[in-house]
Amino acid sequence: MTPRSFENPDFNREARCGYPEVVFGEGKSDADLTRVSRKIFDEHGRVLVTRVNAERAPLLLEHLPGARYEDRARCVVAESTPIERRGRVMIVSAGTSDVPVAEEARVAAECTGSEAETHYDVGIAGLHRVLAIESRFAECRAIVAVAGMDGALPTVIAGLTDRPVIAVPTSVGYGAAFEGIAPLLTMLNGCAAGIAVVNIDNGFGAGMMATRINLLAEPRDR
Amino acid sequence: MTPRSFENPDFNREARCGYPEVVFGEGKSDADLTRVSRKIFDEHGRVLVTRVNAERAPLLLEHLPGARYEDRARCVVAESTPIERRGRVMIVSAGTSDVPVAEEARVAAECTGSEAETHYDVGIAGLHRVLAIESRFAECRAIVAVAGMDGALPTVIAGLTDRPVIAVPTSVGYGAAFEGIAPLLTMLNGCAAGIAVVNIDNGFGAGMMATRINLLAEPRDR
Amino acid sequence: MTPRSFENPDFNREARCGYPEVVFGEGKSDADLTRVSRKIFDEHGRVLVTRVNAERAPLLLEHLPGARYEDRARCVVAESTPIERRGRVMIVSAGTSDVPVAEEARVAAECTGSEAETHYDVGIAGLHRVLAIESRFAECRAIVAVAGMDGALPTVIAGLTDRPVIAVPTSVGYGAAFEGIAPLLTMLNGCAAGIAVVNIDNGFGAGMMATRINLLAEPRDR
Amino acid sequence: MTPRSFENPDFNREARCGYPEVVFGEGKSDADLTRVSRKIFDEHGRVLVTRVNAERAPLLLEHLPGARYEDRARCVVAESTPIERRGRVMIVSAGTSDVPVAEEARVAAECTGSEAETHYDVGIAGLHRVLAIESRFAECRAIVAVAGMDGALPTVIAGLTDRPVIAVPTSVGYGAAFEGIAPLLTMLNGCAAGIAVVNIDNGFGAGMMATRINLLAEPRDR
Amino acid sequence: MTPRSFENPDFNREARCGYPEVVFGEGKSDADLTRVSRKIFDEHGRVLVTRVNAERAPLLLEHLPGARYEDRARCVVAESTPIERRGRVMIVSAGTSDVPVAEEARVAAECTGSEAETHYDVGIAGLHRVLAIESRFAECRAIVAVAGMDGALPTVIAGLTDRPVIAVPTSVGYGAAFEGIAPLLTMLNGCAAGIAVVNIDNGFGAGMMATRINLLAEPRDR
Amino acid sequence: MTPRSFENPDFNREARCGYPEVVFGEGKSDADLTRVSRKIFDEHGRVLVTRVNAERAPLLLEHLPGARYEDRARCVVAESTPIERRGRVMIVSAGTSDVPVAEEARVAAECTGSEAETHYDVGIAGLHRVLAIESRFAECRAIVAVAGMDGALPTVIAGLTDRPVIAVPTSVGYGAAFEGIAPLLTMLNGCAAGIAVVNIDNGFGAGMMATRINLLAEPRDR
Amino acid sequence: MTPRSFENPDFNREARCGYPEVVFGEGKSDADLTRVSRKIFDEHGRVLVTRVNAERAPLLLEHLPGARYEDRARCVVAESTPIERRGRVMIVSAGTSDVPVAEEARVAAECTGSEAETHYDVGIAGLHRVLAIESRFAECRAIVAVAGMDGALPTVIAGLTDRPVIAVPTSVGYGAAFEGIAPLLTMLNGCAAGIAVVNIDNGFGAGMMATRINLLAEPRDR
Amino acid sequence: MTPRSFENPDFNREARCGYPEVVFGEGKSDADLTRVSRKIFDEHGRVLVTRVNAERAPLLLEHLPGARYEDRARCVVAESTPIERRGRVMIVSAGTSDVPVAEEARVAAECTGSEAETHYDVGIAGLHRVLAIESRFAECRAIVAVAGMDGALPTVIAGLTDRPVIAVPTSVGYGAAFEGIAPLLTMLNGCAAGIAVVNIDNGFGAGMMATRINLLAEPRDR
Repeated sequence: MTPRSFENPDFNREARCGYPEVVFGEGKSDADLTRVSRKIFDEHGRVLVTRVNAERAPLLLEHLPGARYEDRARCVVAESTPIERRGRVMIVSAGTSDVPVAEEARVAAECTGSEAETHYDVGIAGLHRVLAIESRFAECRAIVAVAGMDGALPTVIAGLTDRPVIAVPTSVGYGAAFEGIAPLLTMLNGCAAGIAVVNIDNGFGAGMMATRINLLAEPRDR
Repeated sequence: MTPRSFENPDFNREARCGYPEVVFGEGKSDADLTRVSRKIFDEHGRVLVTRVNAERAPLLLEHLPGARYEDRARCVVAESTPIERRGRVMIVSAGTSDVPVAEEARVAAECTGSEAETHYDVGIAGLHRVLAIESRFAECRAIVAVAGMDGALPTVIAGLTDRPVIAVPTSVGYGAAFEGIAPLLTMLNGCAAGIAVVNIDNGFGAGMMATRINLLAEPRDR
Repeated sequence: MTPRSFENPDFNREARCGYPEVVFGEGKSDADLTRVSRKIFDEHGRVLVTRVNAERAPLLLEHLPGARYEDRARCVVAESTPIERRGRVMIVSAGTSDVPVAEEARVAAECTGSEAETHYDVGIAGLHRVLAIESRFAECRAIVAVAGMDGALPTVIAGLTDRPVIAVPTSVGYGAAFEGIAPLLTMLNGCAAGIAVVNIDNGFGAGMMATRINLLAEPRDR
Repeated sequence: MTPRSFENPDFNREARCGYPEVVFGEGKSDADLTRVSRKIFDEHGRVLVTRVNAERAPLLLEHLPGARYEDRARCVVAESTPIERRGRVMIVSAGTSDVPVAEEARVAAECTGSEAETHYDVGIAGLHRVLAIESRFAECRAIVAVAGMDGALPTVIAGLTDRPVIAVPTSVGYGAAFEGIAPLLTMLNGCAAGIAVVNIDNGFGAGMMATRINLLAEPRDR
Repeated sequence: MTPRSFENPDFNREARCGYPEVVFGEGKSDADLTRVSRKIFDEHGRVLVTRVNAERAPLLLEHLPGARYEDRARCVVAESTPIERRGRVMIVSAGTSDVPVAEEARVAAECTGSEAETHYDVGIAGLHRVLAIESRFAECRAIVAVAGMDGALPTVIAGLTDRPVIAVPTSVGYGAAFEGIAPLLTMLNGCAAGIAVVNIDNGFGAGMMATRINLLAEPRDR
Repeated sequence: MTPRSFENPDFNREARCGYPEVVFGEGKSDADLTRVSRKIFDEHGRVLVTRVNAERAPLLLEHLPGARYEDRARCVVAESTPIERRGRVMIVSAGTSDVPVAEEARVAAECTGSEAETHYDVGIAGLHRVLAIESRFAECRAIVAVAGMDGALPTVIAGLTDRPVIAVPTSVGYGAAFEGIAPLLTMLNGCAAGIAVVNIDNGFGAGMMATRINLLAEPRDR
Repeated sequence: MTPRSFENPDFNREARCGYPEVVFGEGKSDADLTRVSRKIFDEHGRVLVTRVNAERAPLLLEHLPGARYEDRARCVVAESTPIERRGRVMIVSAGTSDVPVAEEARVAAECTGSEAETHYDVGIAGLHRVLAIESRFAECRAIVAVAGMDGALPTVIAGLTDRPVIAVPTSVGYGAAFEGIAPLLTMLNGCAAGIAVVNIDNGFGAGMMATRINLLAEPRDR
Repeated sequence: MTPRSFENPDFNREARCGYPEVVFGEGKSDADLTRVSRKIFDEHGRVLVTRVNAERAPLLLEHLPGARYEDRARCVVAESTPIERRGRVMIVSAGTSDVPVAEEARVAAECTGSEAETHYDVGIAGLHRVLAIESRFAECRAIVAVAGMDGALPTVIAGLTDRPVIAVPTSVGYGAAFEGIAPLLTMLNGCAAGIAVVNIDNGFGAGMMATRINLLAEPRDR
């Protein structure tokens, strides 16, 4: 009997979608995680691994040449040559507890070729903090707004700018936050136009979406 | 066999709680609704009937001496002598569709002895509309904030004032608004302190709560 | 007592967000709907009214000079001067039953200044229908993918292109479709990157988002 | 590159809302928690930190001069000068298991300037226990009623008094208590008027709300 | 082809369970409803048909000899010989809107051989109404307690007696009552022992359960 | 502008999947429904249209040559030549109210080439009715078991046979049946092996699945 | 300041309800648990403590004279004089995993004065196991039926007897069992009459209910 | 008192259903698990134990003669004589994280007498991976399709073949995957015919169902 295979990386994805397959680090054994990460790195010269906790990061750093660990974002990034960053996106978080998700969005946006500007802990219970960055919105091509609990920050921002807003609900909070359901619903119901939402805690997806939007306006050579 | 009785009004409630039992108008037959409303009116000299649609209002007006119909609030109010209104509360709505619930809150607050000031359609997608009434908050003892969809208005207000905010989610909207669940969760998770929430579409309960708070600061003669 | 006002249009929104306030047609009385639509038209020279059924459309057409009714989209559009359409977005639907939502997205995208290309009834139960339009993705700056039931179409598309995909779940179907919850969850969990989701049946919001993305890449004169 | 900041305390909140920003202790690293708590203490001369377990309390006590640990309430309180307590509120719990949440409410109410009177384990399965404190209701300006499981205590109390009742559902119990959803729904549906509800386990928010209500009736010098 | 049959009445049920199969009147065509009701009547000499609205009752009365319509209970009862009623059960409702469900319970209990005593509109927002019937509990073998909204009545009663309490949640109310989910959860979480719960609005099932309990204590001749 | 198309039938499906695309009759206009049904009939010589109520059936019968209306199943079937039926499947329903869904399954199974044997109203509250058909299970290649409310019938059957059981939850019932969620969950949790479940009320899908299973054991000429 | 009290045992409960307050062992500190258990034992000469794991049992056995630990039931029972057991109830479980809950029911029934007969692992996937005990039903006054997953056992039993059935859903299982929601719904929707349901995993409550029913038929001397 | 029994294996199941009772390994003590597994092995000469983690496997291997541990599937299999495998089924997984569930399906299918062919990590974000195995579908009698997150793989497959598809949702993922609810709903709503669904993570049940289908087409000697 030939050995059965349990993985089947999509090496064609970069050609179709502009960036190689990203590795989701949770729920994989050490052996599986390092093997599949290395396969992608070897094929494409770059790999992004998300959801890597501090205990496991050294293992990956050892197997991926020149890799770095982004600790707040819980990501490992390996690039044989640095990607060129063009155009600018903004990452905003409502609270300090939302920072890990926001940082994952930043890393994903930067890895895929965007400049990223961050403004954290600007929740709407103190509106002056949002208004203080209002003038920056026009300098960015997409705004990733990360919030838990009431999840109202993306609506407030989308009402102040014409830039597309990518809303990321987070699972912080307790009780009726229901692990992120509350801000997810808030964001889907945002009364301002120009908002679209990704999965709870999906900073990575938001960062990828921001780059897709951002790079549309760059001269294309890909 | 003695005739069985299907209703049992709580004529002692005014003594305990400061206002007679209020009649919820939905789901009662015409005969039951008029009979119980009149019983309370006869006992206390006043009655508030909520959830009365325009088709049914004339019937009640006919049975309750001197009654008036508040059409946007869908309430019938009968008072043998007008109640004295002391102190001031504010009723705010995020959208125009939230007005029926907000008006029900206004009528309940006024019927139970409060002055009420209203500001409608001041949702956070256009923040300047909220900021335009910021200076009025300190003139009121409680603020009823009514909102559907993203339900973020109460949080924004509670972050701008030290007055207690009573949040009322409404069932307007569609899709992931889930008949008011979305704003209910938003309000329960509001990141500002000083908010408490009532049932979806429960303008009446919010108005009653506002009066309970408001009258605490008045010289008591009750 | 001065007359109380129940509406408070945000006439500044075009300046901040690039397009005037849009009117949601459901749940408003005839009088309220025509008055607020006309106010916005008078202020901005254009207005988009969504969720207008065929019975009610003539009333609006009568009150808004030069307005047209988009029947499949259930929208009324009034423009004193036609908006210039620049750049191209794609609107795709999985089934025929999703067409009303898809058409709402098309109208919203066109009204706000985008060219729109539509491909309807290309669900994944017959994959060849999706593959037949694969070459068109690169000709558009954003793809609005509308689907009910299993809601899998946006994931398939996002795996075939580097364009941002805006996913719209619809409430068609029955049973465990749960009025659109099933496709909403599918879309939030889409295994391809580059997808963000709007509210159930929110074609309008998806079309607005598509234009926000599309116009970023146009020379800006706004 | 300038160092990025992950926190942005709202030092203006005391001026707007009457009390400084409160620190939520869960989900923050030791370093982040002590740094932000100390910043607020240094700015305002007082700070309340909630959700601090017994293992972590000594760390905060060490960094905050003169701080005390309220163990049942799981709160750390630091005050450079004791706050003046004026007016009285009541904190009631249905069961012994609800005490931690009730105590958090008491500490929040006291820290923000209210006298607090407590009556614990007075659930409605033994009604005589509620009736035994009925005469105390009129001596307090607001009643915080904390209950899990059936969550019926606030309704019973609101039917016995004209004071505003702030209901707090707790996550105690099992099975169909659904981590507090059952009492949350009970409280939102309370058949007595004069109840408003805060998030599950949100003793802190209830205490703050109680103070907002209580201090309205005090001569204002703030 | 032999005609296919769409119904298959369980004529053996009376022998096994003490009472013939009961007919649920909703969702059946006129022809199906009258045919199956008559079949059971012909076999057993008695039949109970529930959920029959006033429009449809005459049709059944015509097909079932000597039948009567219990209008508040929405039931049709046909008995060739009256059943002997032995032992007593109590039916209690929290509000007037709960009466139809309570009456269905009463009819079911009486039809199956119990005496039934009713006390309606004794909700816990006015506790004195419950306390007024406390002495009656010991005179009954089972207590059916019907309530919507907060659903707290069964808990209060079970805490005052040693009789088994059958709790029936009703779908009255609005918003977070969620068509009866709120009182259902309250009742499942009742903090007093000696409560068991039936389906939302299932007065019929509660009445049947009450008789099963009641007749256990009677001399058995069945 | 070329006319846009709103439908895109999958004429290749019969070749891939063994049967042409089936038309879901709800939520389509009369014009759309008849046009798409006729297109499929013209292409394949047969068409099955589901969810057609009695009011609408004549319209389809008029447009589809030789069509018949299966009224209990709410289906229209048009076949230019009758399909050959080979092998046998069983359709079982727990109650009479489940018959429309069961009949839809029967029609779907027969239209796609299976003999179907039906046994209706054999719910588990009277076990003898199930045991009476036990000997028939071995004569059929697949068993479609349709049930609402407690949804336990498929488990009982799967424990009595080695044939694959396709479980169909129905939306009949009230209260905690939650429009079919209760039997859906029961079926997914069935403690016997050999059960798989389709969508609530999806008789059509169950019938198609039964035929797919049934025809595997027939000599293949397709 | 006088010491505050955190507990308030209901020493009057035995007089009202026939059995002293039962102590729920989870979520209490060692000190609180032993103190309150001992208080009740000292007052009444008996106490039942539920949800006590094997690690904690010795502590209670040490503080309660003559106490015993029922390990499968996870209960501690202390009785200064053994209670007289009169009449018989039955406890049935569908699976082996349901035994802890069933045993809790048995202990509760016995402690409160009933004889209890048990039959475990008689699930409906093997119907013969249920039929094997059918003749025993008539020998018992109430039947507690415990089941997880599909939760269908109580319906099958209630269809075979005229005894009241108390259904207990358990949280065993995985996936769509949803921690006991699936069997809870099944039981609420049971198609046989004579079933009432208690909270998920609430063996204790079911046992208490069984005794309440059982003792009704005994000569009363309480 | 005779010793009570807590288990009651269904030794007749093989005769009725074609395979002995399978042991679910979670939530049983070591002693209970080994005892019941051995009893079944002794009776039937074979036993399958699922949900056995690596720590516990050696214990079972020791008690069951000739047993083997399938580590990715987390199953222990003991067969006194190998079962004959006839006919072929396919097991497909969308991602690598779904492999444990898929492997459980493979083991269950093989243990019960089917050949199994596996294709893992062929998710629809890279459609070419599915299309690469399209020609294999016709070589198998049933296809088990395992997927988490968006859960769309079964629909795509069912649209490409006429073989019955058994869909298995998995609990992998995060956020709005809701522990497998998202793919469960997707699969129930699959827009292709010929799909039926089993419980979340229920690889075992899917494998059993696949064998039931597969063996129908084999010459029967059972």
